[in-house]
Amino acid sequence: MFLEEYDVIVVGGGHAGAEAAAAAANMGSKTLLVTMNLQTIGQMSCNPAMGGIAKGQIVREIDALGGYSGIISDKSAIQFKMLNKSKGPAMWSPRSQNDRMRFAEEWRLALEGIPKLDFYQEMVGGLLIENNRIAGVKTSLGIEIRARAVVLTNGTFLNGLIHIGEKQFGGGRAGEKAATGITEELTSLGFESGRMKTGTPPRVDGRSLDYSVMIPQPGDERPEKFSYLNTPVLEVQRDCYMTHTSALVHDLLREGFDRSPMFNGRIKSIGPRYCPSIEDKINRFADKDSHQIFVEPEGWDTVEVYVNGFSTSLPEDVQFKALRSVKGFEKVKFFRPGYAIEYDYFPPTQLKHTLETKLVENLYFAGQINGTTGYEEAASQGLMAGINAHLKLNEKEPFVLKRDEAYIGVLIDDLITKGTEEPYRMFTSRAEYRTLLRQDNADLRLTPKSFAMGLASEERMKRMERKEQKAASFVSFFRETSFRPEDINPILERLDSSLVKQPDKMFKVFSRPHVTMDHMLQLEPVSRFVEEHDLDREVLEQTEIQIKYSGYIEKEKLNADKLHRLENVQIPPNFDYSKLKSLSYEAREKLNAIQPVTIAQAARVSGVNPSDISVLLVYLGR
Amino acid sequence: MFLEEYDVIVVGGGHAGAEAAAAAANMGSKTLLVTMNLQTIGQMSCNPAMGGIAKGQIVREIDALGGYSGIISDKSAIQFKMLNKSKGPAMWSPRSQNDRMRFAEEWRLALEGIPKLDFYQEMVGGLLIENNRIAGVKTSLGIEIRARAVVLTNGTFLNGLIHIGEKQFGGGRAGEKAATGITEELTSLGFESGRMKTGTPPRVDGRSLDYSVMIPQPGDERPEKFSYLNTPVLEVQRDCYMTHTSALVHDLLREGFDRSPMFNGRIKSIGPRYCPSIEDKINRFADKDSHQIFVEPEGWDTVEVYVNGFSTSLPEDVQFKALRSVKGFEKVKFFRPGYAIEYDYFPPTQLKHTLETKLVENLYFAGQINGTTGYEEAASQGLMAGINAHLKLNEKEPFVLKRDEAYIGVLIDDLITKGTEEPYRMFTSRAEYRTLLRQDNADLRLTPKSFAMGLASEERMKRMERKEQKAASFVSFFRETSFRPEDINPILERLDSSLVKQPDKMFKVFSRPHVTMDHMLQLEPVSRFVEEHDLDREVLEQTEIQIKYSGYIEKEKLNADKLHRLENVQIPPNFDYSKLKSLSYEAREKLNAIQPVTIAQAARVSGVNPSDISVLLVYLGR
Ligand SMILES: Cc1cc2nc3c(=O)[nH]c(=O)nc-3n(C[C@H](O)[C@H](O)[C@H](O)COP(=O)(O)OP(=O)(O)OC[C@H]3O[C@@H](n4cnc5c(N)ncnc54)[C@H](O)[C@@H]3O)c2cc1C
Ligand SMILES: Cc1cc2nc3c(=O)[nH]c(=O)nc-3n(C[C@H](O)[C@H](O)[C@H](O)COP(=O)(O)OP(=O)(O)OC[C@H]3O[C@@H](n4cnc5c(N)ncnc54)[C@H](O)[C@@H]3O)c2cc1C
Repeated sequence: MFLEEYDVIVVGGGHAGAEAAAAAANMGSKTLLVTMNLQTIGQMSCNPAMGGIAKGQIVREIDALGGYSGIISDKSAIQFKMLNKSKGPAMWSPRSQNDRMRFAEEWRLALEGIPKLDFYQEMVGGLLIENNRIAGVKTSLGIEIRARAVVLTNGTFLNGLIHIGEKQFGGGRAGEKAATGITEELTSLGFESGRMKTGTPPRVDGRSLDYSVMIPQPGDERPEKFSYLNTPVLEVQRDCYMTHTSALVHDLLREGFDRSPMFNGRIKSIGPRYCPSIEDKINRFADKDSHQIFVEPEGWDTVEVYVNGFSTSLPEDVQFKALRSVKGFEKVKFFRPGYAIEYDYFPPTQLKHTLETKLVENLYFAGQINGTTGYEEAASQGLMAGINAHLKLNEKEPFVLKRDEAYIGVLIDDLITKGTEEPYRMFTSRAEYRTLLRQDNADLRLTPKSFAMGLASEERMKRMERKEQKAASFVSFFRETSFRPEDINPILERLDSSLVKQPDKMFKVFSRPHVTMDHMLQLEPVSRFVEEHDLDREVLEQTEIQIKYSGYIEKEKLNADKLHRLENVQIPPNFDYSKLKSLSYEAREKLNAIQPVTIAQAARVSGVNPSDISVLLVYLGR
Repeated sequence: MFLEEYDVIVVGGGHAGAEAAAAAANMGSKTLLVTMNLQTIGQMSCNPAMGGIAKGQIVREIDALGGYSGIISDKSAIQFKMLNKSKGPAMWSPRSQNDRMRFAEEWRLALEGIPKLDFYQEMVGGLLIENNRIAGVKTSLGIEIRARAVVLTNGTFLNGLIHIGEKQFGGGRAGEKAATGITEELTSLGFESGRMKTGTPPRVDGRSLDYSVMIPQPGDERPEKFSYLNTPVLEVQRDCYMTHTSALVHDLLREGFDRSPMFNGRIKSIGPRYCPSIEDKINRFADKDSHQIFVEPEGWDTVEVYVNGFSTSLPEDVQFKALRSVKGFEKVKFFRPGYAIEYDYFPPTQLKHTLETKLVENLYFAGQINGTTGYEEAASQGLMAGINAHLKLNEKEPFVLKRDEAYIGVLIDDLITKGTEEPYRMFTSRAEYRTLLRQDNADLRLTPKSFAMGLASEERMKRMERKEQKAASFVSFFRETSFRPEDINPILERLDSSLVKQPDKMFKVFSRPHVTMDHMLQLEPVSRFVEEHDLDREVLEQTEIQIKYSGYIEKEKLNADKLHRLENVQIPPNFDYSKLKSLSYEAREKLNAIQPVTIAQAARVSGVNPSDISVLLVYLGR
């Protein structure tokens, strides 16, 4: 049925698969997306939201690289918030609530718009492998589809097992079948696999809630958006609401603990520590008798509501009784109970930086299959796997992002270097150089690289260049232009900042802690410059950050450069560490397993000490 | 988890379930819709179209009664056609192409708008029955939900088994799980069950087709719509296309016949005769070497295409090879192959006219579970079951439509009286009084009845009354107003119709075969009347039909009245026919099984002869 060989086959149409398929096809590879159900492409399995702390930065990076997650999020957003706006810009994190159905529909239509991308609906049950090199996939109907590269993005579907209280049944998501065959085949080839778990809260009927006793959580007054392209900005938004659990709620939940698959040993695998179930929270923070609950609408028009913060796999009657005791939920009606799901993953230390597997050439893994959790983490891996599959087939240099270039770089380097024993999610604290990896400059950091390799569009590149140039000239303006004391002092006085006696460069006062762009705009030459050069909000913000945080930014750049020196010390492929007896035993073991490609990466492998690094540097003649 | 008892639980959110839930809740019953996946409510399993011959009339009837199928179809339509417009108005049949995703979304949102309707996502695996009376359902998680009445609308899901070539696997629809437990429970209670099958064609990528060699099938120039309410009329439409199979295509298909589950005995159940698979058509009409294929878009924006006329369960490689030989499909790419599905149904002779089962009180069956096929047939049964469940709980008279009142009446009477051994679909030929059961007058026929029992809204009733009155006064106008020969003769001359010498009532000439409303409108008094009374297109059409077909209509009314006399002869409940030895053996058997409630119904039971009816009439003292 498939006459020709594809360049790339992507298995799975979740966030990872959709980005992978789009990237490979947009770069020019003849690509096929095979997924179990074409109607669930881009389905949000859990909460109807994108972004958030560190995750929002990833969405911006995906967008800067020419991926679709940002565009789709903007088109389907029902609320937008810039989190952490009161902190420094390194912490600013965009987040949107989304219309779940719209999100999936926009993904589907976006993918259909890609000329080199084909679609096929079926479960993939096996792989074609020839001489340790991938040759295609085999569907459950037994159809063989040949390809030169394959990206697996099976999400939570591999031998998925759903738990609610003492009951369990197979499934990849509520109401959907699990996928079988692939794990078994890969382990027989020598891959190591493990089990992880994740959970989701009940969905309820918004008509049964009393919002009047909850705290409204509106979106930003001046909402921004994810994409650097020309996507729409929200004009109306839907509110979320906040409420709290109580000691009574916790007691009611505790009544079910003996029937909880989490506590009675039925679920053995490890769940996401930072996105714990409500029973986990009660258990771990026994002294807290209240936890926040966020009530999130599932779309513009639907009455379905997502109960964020109440993820649980307790028996459904316990979920129900406890939730009914939450303020505003006294009359709640369930659409469906929460549940936990266990699924197979493959420890990501089995991958290269390109997400290609070390064991089978041209076979890539991306998303939840690598032990991560979250749409954004999945999408970004999909994008990188799609790009690298294409590049490798075309004998181009791999595309690897460094830890000081992108959260995506941190994510993948962490995964393949350290592996993960619990579902991995991104945090700003994982990034050594988070002052560099801001949401406002993802385009400046990444678009040129992506444009150069043929993924980001010319429009995207032009927009980025315009922003870069305008911000640079505005920064120069502040460096070069002087203020007059009589103009600036009234402003400083209001800010309780010490007054100035002589004219000086504007840059100087602008750097003071409480002085913002809004203050500077009160100076006539500044507002005139803005008008004459037609500077938009984005450029103003960029300029402000570059000026006010220049000190931090420069310092981090220096640190990063130091690291780069180590990053440049390559270790030969298939290096045999066992012959280096002066390495610690643990270092020899781990380094042999991980096979880092640079000294810097070797330094990040857990169990490798600075002394081991010295030994290596000496051996490599440095 | 469910604290209170519901009035009505509807199992399944397909066309039947959605209408049933809406009707019961809108009439005032506390209703719960339980379905396997809340994201697939109102899913079109097969072609993205509503209505068609006889089916379009049913949609109009559903709408006239206050159901939603017409409204949803209008809101999601991408093309509209009035079929058979060249024939008499009894044959006019509205049909729409629909955006599949929009259709399901509109259904979901419409249902969410009904205050008394709750939702729950899970598979129902069993029934609660107490003293031969339904008491609720049991979900696969073991949750018991109590209700005073239950409507089962499981569609093709009960022990669904999907076939493609020699492969088979469980499922209720491609990519969805089958439902288990209910058949087993019902048969253990004494219900008889059977197996049927149906099939669906491949879905393909519209971008791979060459439309330039196909024949465009545009929608009507002045598209109408289904609903009698104020739904939107299409302003732009999407074209369908027509192409044909060929002798070569048939030969290629025949190559797979030995691997066809239809021909090698693997599928034993009977499929829809009038919606046959392509292999069936080739087999049955061996001398025809071309069949029509309609290429139908699946929505406004998607590239997915439905290949109407090419339903098949041949091995996927055979499907592919053959379809590639169809004109315009030379480069076709598959989204997924066609397949057949076998599922359990319950012979509908086990039901009363209200669709309540004879064996278990307050348990209703509606839709494909009753051995029918088609969205419209399913939806109308759901509507009637929902209405009757509500009425019975409130000790009101049942709502049964007679064969001269609605296609829905014909459908249900056929089902419960004759049963069906193959998937039943509606045809105009099944209706004895199709001149009465037109698509233009469903509101006049049914809205007053529905309004009287509290389902149809006042707005709907008002609109219907306005139309009725306006049409009546316009008909009177034609009956009472005379023309002048000098005005009418130029028109008659152009029509080649014999000229008139004296003035006469306009009604007279209007009744002539070739004279239409458009001609009459050329008479100044007519156009003045239209303008003065602000008559719209619908009223003009209604008036025209009432005048031009009054002869036929009157004749059918007389026939129907005769039948009504028999219809009024009631047979006592649980009548024991075995004691009437003068009945034929077959009649005794069949009548005992069916237990008709009137002599007229008894006459329609297959195997019952006029002489048997005479015996019965004598016995009943008539
Ligand atoms: C119950 C649940 C709770 C979750 N809770 C959280 C949470 O609290 N926080 C959080 O950050 N994340 C959570 N997630 C995870 C989040 O949904 C995932 O991180 C994200 O969806 C992963 O994206 P993915 O593309 O890797 O996989 P998925 O989105 O799971 O998509 C996988 C896709 O692959 C297809 N597929 C799988 N196997 C095959 C096969 N063999 N052949 C063909 N197609 C196949 C599937 O049909 C699906 O389209 C949860 C997920 C689930 C199911
Ligand atoms: C492959 C295929 C081909 C078809 N081809 C044709 C055709 O050519 N022509 C034609 O006219 N019609 C065709 N049909 C039939 C058409 O789809 C049906 O007539 C129509 O959808 C029936 O409506 P329904 O409401 O009875 O059931 P469905 O539309 O099947 O809906 C059943 C609903 O019940 C739910 N459900 C089932 N069991 C349970 C349970 N135990 N617990 C909870 N929920 C449950 C399901 O999830 C689903 O939502 C085809 C159907 C299929 C699947």
